[in-house]
Amino acid sequence: MSSTSTVRVANERALFEVLCRGGHLSAPELVGATGLSKPTVGIALGELEELGLVEQVGRRTGSTGRAPRVYRLSPSAGGALAIDVGRQWVRGARVDLAGQVVRRAQREADGRPASALVEEVLGLADELVADEPGADGGTPAGGHAVSHTVLGSPGVYDAAADVIRLAPNLPGWEERSVLARLRRRLPGTLVVENDINLAALAELDGLRVDGEDTDDFVFVSVGTGLGMGVISHGRLLRGARGAAGEISYLPADPSTPSSPTRLEELTGSASVVSAAREAGLEAISAVDVFDAARRGSSRARVVVAREAERVALALTAVVAVLDPPLVILGGGVGRNGDLLLDPIRAVLRERLPLPPPEIRVSRLGVDAPLQGALADGLVRARQHAFEAATAVA
Amino acid sequence: MSSTSTVRVANERALFEVLCRGGHLSAPELVGATGLSKPTVGIALGELEELGLVEQVGRRTGSTGRAPRVYRLSPSAGGALAIDVGRQWVRGARVDLAGQVVRRAQREADGRPASALVEEVLGLADELVADEPGADGGTPAGGHAVSHTVLGSPGVYDAAADVIRLAPNLPGWEERSVLARLRRRLPGTLVVENDINLAALAELDGLRVDGEDTDDFVFVSVGTGLGMGVISHGRLLRGARGAAGEISYLPADPSTPSSPTRLEELTGSASVVSAAREAGLEAISAVDVFDAARRGSSRARVVVAREAERVALALTAVVAVLDPPLVILGGGVGRNGDLLLDPIRAVLRERLPLPPPEIRVSRLGVDAPLQGALADGLVRARQHAFEAATAVA
Repeated sequence: MSSTSTVRVANERALFEVLCRGGHLSAPELVGATGLSKPTVGIALGELEELGLVEQVGRRTGSTGRAPRVYRLSPSAGGALAIDVGRQWVRGARVDLAGQVVRRAQREADGRPASALVEEVLGLADELVADEPGADGGTPAGGHAVSHTVLGSPGVYDAAADVIRLAPNLPGWEERSVLARLRRRLPGTLVVENDINLAALAELDGLRVDGEDTDDFVFVSVGTGLGMGVISHGRLLRGARGAAGEISYLPADPSTPSSPTRLEELTGSASVVSAAREAGLEAISAVDVFDAARRGSSRARVVVAREAERVALALTAVVAVLDPPLVILGGGVGRNGDLLLDPIRAVLRERLPLPPPEIRVSRLGVDAPLQGALADGLVRARQHAFEAATAVA
Repeated sequence: MSSTSTVRVANERALFEVLCRGGHLSAPELVGATGLSKPTVGIALGELEELGLVEQVGRRTGSTGRAPRVYRLSPSAGGALAIDVGRQWVRGARVDLAGQVVRRAQREADGRPASALVEEVLGLADELVADEPGADGGTPAGGHAVSHTVLGSPGVYDAAADVIRLAPNLPGWEERSVLARLRRRLPGTLVVENDINLAALAELDGLRVDGEDTDDFVFVSVGTGLGMGVISHGRLLRGARGAAGEISYLPADPSTPSSPTRLEELTGSASVVSAAREAGLEAISAVDVFDAARRGSSRARVVVAREAERVALALTAVVAVLDPPLVILGGGVGRNGDLLLDPIRAVLRERLPLPPPEIRVSRLGVDAPLQGALADGLVRARQHAFEAATAVA
């Protein structure tokens, strides 16, 4: 590449990245955001339009003089699919290159064996791409505009072996054939990531949208299981085998090393329900137990207090190892901050020599992993679209 | 700064950094390492010599044609002091800008109150800088060539309050006046860092010297206390309050949250000694216990096995949270790898769902924190020397 074209591509990349962050921007706004000269921005925008990466969406009104043109990334220049596989639901969505979520869908997963679950995932994906621009052969290759599918899953993705491990709640899901079939039939490049890690990415995105400049935090999910996503220096900390944050394996009872109870077994929603039943409550779900505690049931409050203590034990270990400035609690159990946060803080104050970190409850719902998958897929799709277009040019 | 001088300084920085890594290098070697042209290297070397940052140390012999000149960083262009304060010893060393350790010294610290300990540190520092080039007024300001003192200490450095916290083994050391006095009288800028974190930096340095490309690992020290330094992406992970790796506060007995025993109390050398005495052994130090186990004492072996189990519990939590590819064990207790490593691995295999990470024993000795302080100080002193010289120019 000549140095002239290196500079040209660098200018185009600068504009492209500003449009990734900014949505709809006028040429003068792009001049301001990039620091490039007005003529340079004009030339680069023309080239990006020609490459199909950027399009004009009108003119900015309300300004004096000639109304400036407004640009955005071309929605049809690419896209990503996000699919979150859980024990009860498979959720999916498609995002276009402009960042708009153009389709959402979900299917029941409960009880299906892995092979049937794979079919649900594939059916969901077909549904999500049915109306995409490339589906009718409109793209040059007659293929999909979607360049990446990000798949969220319980467990740990072992990239070397290309299998998912430690997903006992999805029977058969750890078989090699699962990812092989998905990889063959899902559109674009398949990216596999732990669902709680994706939820942590969604939290990071949410914090940035809210203007919080927090590059380090942990997202701890307490629901069916116990899991954590660690964000360090603004990036997901995956660990050597993708198993960072697998706090379900924290020792629950280290004083007797011969009984390797997992902390997850003592904190998950099933343990809340069984403790409530032992206490004589008619609880069907963990939600019932928290609702009863809110209504003043003293037996439910005892169960909730015990749960808070156990979550606090997990957090004690997390804080001792990482000293994060912020802990975000999520998951069906963890979201009950009104009942959990104060007792959790009390245990941390008792056990740790420094004041507890800030602890708050996630504002995202059950689709946080899907949101994280969309955010991750969008970053990858945009990167891919820019590089594919400028490499050809 | 004009763009010409920006390029000039960038070229000088490139040469300077290659010399930081490389020691003694000839002009052709510098051409090869930087990718700059021969004339550009010649000009930049001349300027670096004029700034006093680089000096010629002879000519490379053995090559055909004219023997090329060999350069290194000027030792007298700057330097750093490293001091490690422990319960029994205060250790110190001075490094010059070329990376040579020019002086080492140590003083007994045992039992001294904080105010006397401060005097020992200051006396040690005076001893270390007594013969430095700037001490006789040779530097322009008549001050020290040493631009930084890196102080290793037990506990956690709270930068906001400028005090050391959580150093119960050094009575009085957490007083505000300690760092105030040290900052006033130690040469250069004072950098305070947890001693185990510094040891982790020394391990990182050692791995790189050995050609191991390991940017992520944890260094776990088991000695008087229990501590950890986390290296992530080649950098120290300090946490929000400098307390990352404070695994001495891991819950030792989470099943009874009302008894907040610290894991350190169950793993430190004092607990090894007291367990040995309870078992009827005449042990004065943890070393005695490990020696007795090596000689075949079955009672000592029971104590060692219990110790391995407890260290393994700490590692279980560390691996569950971070999933590091490598654990380096150090400290007076931790260094007994021949007796500890196999039982530790066995507990990790039992408790964790993935195979244990690589675990090995540190090859560094008791002065690992000092070595880390020297490495850190050298990086800072070189950075400072370059910036001070090129800013003036």
